[in-house]
Amino acid sequence: MNFKLIVQYDGTDFHGWQIQPGKRTVQGELTRTLSLLDGQGVQVHGSGRTDAGVHAEGQVASVVLQRAFRPENLRAAINGNLERDLRIISVDEVTDDFHARFSAKSKTYVYRILNGPVMPPFWRKYAFHMARDLNVERMISAARQFRGTHDWTAFSAAQSDVASRVRSVTGIEVLDSADMRSGSRLIEIRATSEGFLRYMVRSIVGALLAVGLAQIDESDILHAIRTGFRSKFIVTAPAHGLTLVEVHY
Amino acid sequence: MNFKLIVQYDGTDFHGWQIQPGKRTVQGELTRTLSLLDGQGVQVHGSGRTDAGVHAEGQVASVVLQRAFRPENLRAAINGNLERDLRIISVDEVTDDFHARFSAKSKTYVYRILNGPVMPPFWRKYAFHMARDLNVERMISAARQFRGTHDWTAFSAAQSDVASRVRSVTGIEVLDSADMRSGSRLIEIRATSEGFLRYMVRSIVGALLAVGLAQIDESDILHAIRTGFRSKFIVTAPAHGLTLVEVHY
Repeated sequence: MNFKLIVQYDGTDFHGWQIQPGKRTVQGELTRTLSLLDGQGVQVHGSGRTDAGVHAEGQVASVVLQRAFRPENLRAAINGNLERDLRIISVDEVTDDFHARFSAKSKTYVYRILNGPVMPPFWRKYAFHMARDLNVERMISAARQFRGTHDWTAFSAAQSDVASRVRSVTGIEVLDSADMRSGSRLIEIRATSEGFLRYMVRSIVGALLAVGLAQIDESDILHAIRTGFRSKFIVTAPAHGLTLVEVHY
Repeated sequence: MNFKLIVQYDGTDFHGWQIQPGKRTVQGELTRTLSLLDGQGVQVHGSGRTDAGVHAEGQVASVVLQRAFRPENLRAAINGNLERDLRIISVDEVTDDFHARFSAKSKTYVYRILNGPVMPPFWRKYAFHMARDLNVERMISAARQFRGTHDWTAFSAAQSDVASRVRSVTGIEVLDSADMRSGSRLIEIRATSEGFLRYMVRSIVGALLAVGLAQIDESDILHAIRTGFRSKFIVTAPAHGLTLVEVHY
């Protein structure tokens, strides 16, 4: 039987998604638990990797098991074997052709920025702290430059074995709100694409932070996209602000 | 000079507010840091104690310093000497008669309950998980019984040296919402009083949980208030769901 799992994790204490010997990873924890429950070594597929420190509110995994579990029993059994920073939100039985990675049509990430003089303790692991005042109007305007089909060489990891760095970004939004708990300004950057390259969201965020600080302007973003080279002001924003929100099938 | 500090903390790794030898407490950390900055041993007064594991979004402290700090410099200097689970949100110079505890008129606490089959990892340290479905309509109705001036013997710590257990609760609300990050149901119980006894909010919450689970009804609450004895179904809800939101002056 083939199962689809929706998975949430606090990425703080994980070395990312991908299984690695001797390291605590999300795929490693799920593989260990599901192999134990199924009485055999199983293969757990994710919609894609998340880097060390990145969180997930809606990661998706698929796994073929030989035992005939009822979905809600399987969910309870897995959660009972995991620590509390990793939870299975739902389990559904799916047709044999479903594969968490190959069936995925697109993904949505959110990057959270706490913009204010003091970082509230409750957000310290889930958002990036920017003490200097960000001009959100500039960021909203500049975000439009990222929409569409581009070569993302300037906005992805230098080392990469992908054949092409052309990807389509179908949605990008900058949202400005007051955090309920701290009263601080919480800026969320949401991005949706058919496929993100490594460090792509965090590089886009780095560019928007530089725009918000008036270190660069929109033309520098266009230049980076066109040439594949980016300004020194465009850094890769830290992992802990990033959360995989949803995988679309 | 007399200073008023608004303080936030993630209570998870503190043995509560009150200074205790050999234990990490909020008052202890602030006393150590402020004594260091002022070059003498200082007395840090809080609006009141919070128990181990209880959080604060708006605890208030006051302290008399002999050096003439500018408030924003003092804030930065304190925060620079604290770990990230404890932050000074604001510092204001106040008149000599201000005292964090004696000047306080009332306080507001919130107790957060995640009601759903699975506890989202992001809430595990800040909310209590109730897997069984709570009837929030019943809780909203029962909450009204707590409003007003009562003897809170049945809803406070058995061991206590207070002269009277009569207190006025001026506000109590039960709010039902969908948590943005997990999609789960988040129930918040907000209570305001001129003075809470130890375990009072957590006992009120325990009673409302029992009402929400249909283990008791409103008459059991009235009975407990009247007699000073409570049903075995009324437990003291765990500390980690409780947050001190605001101190009113």
